[in-house]
Amino acid sequence: MPADAARDLHALLFDTYGTVVDWRGGVLAALRALGRARGIAPDWEAFLSDWNTRPLMDRVNRGELPWMTMEEIHRQALEGALARHGITTTEPEIHDLVHVRWHLAPWPDSVPGLTRLKQRYVISPLSNASFIGMVRLAKSAGLPWDCILTAENARCYKPRPEAYRTAVSLLGLRAGQVMLVAAHNYDLRAAQGEGLRTAFVPRRTEYGPNQTTDLAPEGAWDVVAEDFLDLADRLGAPSA
Amino acid sequence: MPADAARDLHALLFDTYGTVVDWRGGVLAALRALGRARGIAPDWEAFLSDWNTRPLMDRVNRGELPWMTMEEIHRQALEGALARHGITTTEPEIHDLVHVRWHLAPWPDSVPGLTRLKQRYVISPLSNASFIGMVRLAKSAGLPWDCILTAENARCYKPRPEAYRTAVSLLGLRAGQVMLVAAHNYDLRAAQGEGLRTAFVPRRTEYGPNQTTDLAPEGAWDVVAEDFLDLADRLGAPSA
Repeated sequence: MPADAARDLHALLFDTYGTVVDWRGGVLAALRALGRARGIAPDWEAFLSDWNTRPLMDRVNRGELPWMTMEEIHRQALEGALARHGITTTEPEIHDLVHVRWHLAPWPDSVPGLTRLKQRYVISPLSNASFIGMVRLAKSAGLPWDCILTAENARCYKPRPEAYRTAVSLLGLRAGQVMLVAAHNYDLRAAQGEGLRTAFVPRRTEYGPNQTTDLAPEGAWDVVAEDFLDLADRLGAPSA
Repeated sequence: MPADAARDLHALLFDTYGTVVDWRGGVLAALRALGRARGIAPDWEAFLSDWNTRPLMDRVNRGELPWMTMEEIHRQALEGALARHGITTTEPEIHDLVHVRWHLAPWPDSVPGLTRLKQRYVISPLSNASFIGMVRLAKSAGLPWDCILTAENARCYKPRPEAYRTAVSLLGLRAGQVMLVAAHNYDLRAAQGEGLRTAFVPRRTEYGPNQTTDLAPEGAWDVVAEDFLDLADRLGAPSA
């Protein structure tokens, strides 16, 4: 990134599920606990792949469905997957599975890296999570955000341009003064299309040990960093 | 407040200018510094009364003006006041005066009280400030918010109902699960009208030593507290 562009950078937006916290590990652990409690042992990894929220998010983005928060989308997608896999559950069990994402564990470098970056930049999530979902996750995981921004602020999901534009607008900045940090090339591509700066931080086990996607940068991202501490170094954040 | 209502309380929204931070002291200090630099000594207290943003906010609320952030409104109101008082300034001086509110001092009880309340509740500003104005103030003053909510999220100003409704909606709660904490009766009245719980914390010198308004509760507010530490006691927040 050119030095003058780096000097004009004021805020960092972070994709959160996958980029900051390990959603897969936390959700798999909750599914396995449910299995133990019920004495069943389905292929939970296959189940997790089938608990796919993207089709509902895309329908919201196309205006085919009204705005729904990720809790509503996770619930609908979960109920479909449970039915397809022949798993019966109680309402409290469904509620708990939908809300596991409010209490996920950060990657080891996340909190120390964010703490350094916060000293130089405004730091915020820009997640497809609900607003309260990101608030609760931050409280639970000790994520030191300066504010919370999510797709819910725009009432549509990434990669719709409005999700990025609304965040930039609320920050009172120009797009080029804001950087998206993400482990996902599709997200960076959309942000770059809106004029934001981009940082790719691969999370090579986000989808498990046999992950085949997002292992390497697929675009001309401004920064590629190994983790958030490396990102702090590259962006000139003070040492801890 | 009934015990069952208290148990169902999840989030506290705080008016900020006046309630959390001393806007008047900070702005007067900046005006006096400007006077010293220019070798002028107008009646800055009278000037401050004349730097009145409410008429422009009301025009935005009535739809007579498009949405403008508080920085734009403060600038327009300031330029009018400067002209009426015959004070000439430079663009950087105007910029600095408009942004003084990004760096105000909290009342002595604010940070310790918020720190206690955060252990039990989601805490957020609900200010008429711009979103970035509240982010910058929080960084500068060390306000430990869980998130930032302002009138800008609704693109209209308190006491318009949408300002309260948008905050409650983003928190994923019902209005009765949210409490507005404010030093201003008008703000509590509007929040109560939307079904929010209310706490009055008088700031008896917010408008200077001769303040005549908001010295006492003017409605049936759920809680009246002397300061944020007293509020933390009354709402059952853990001790420091």
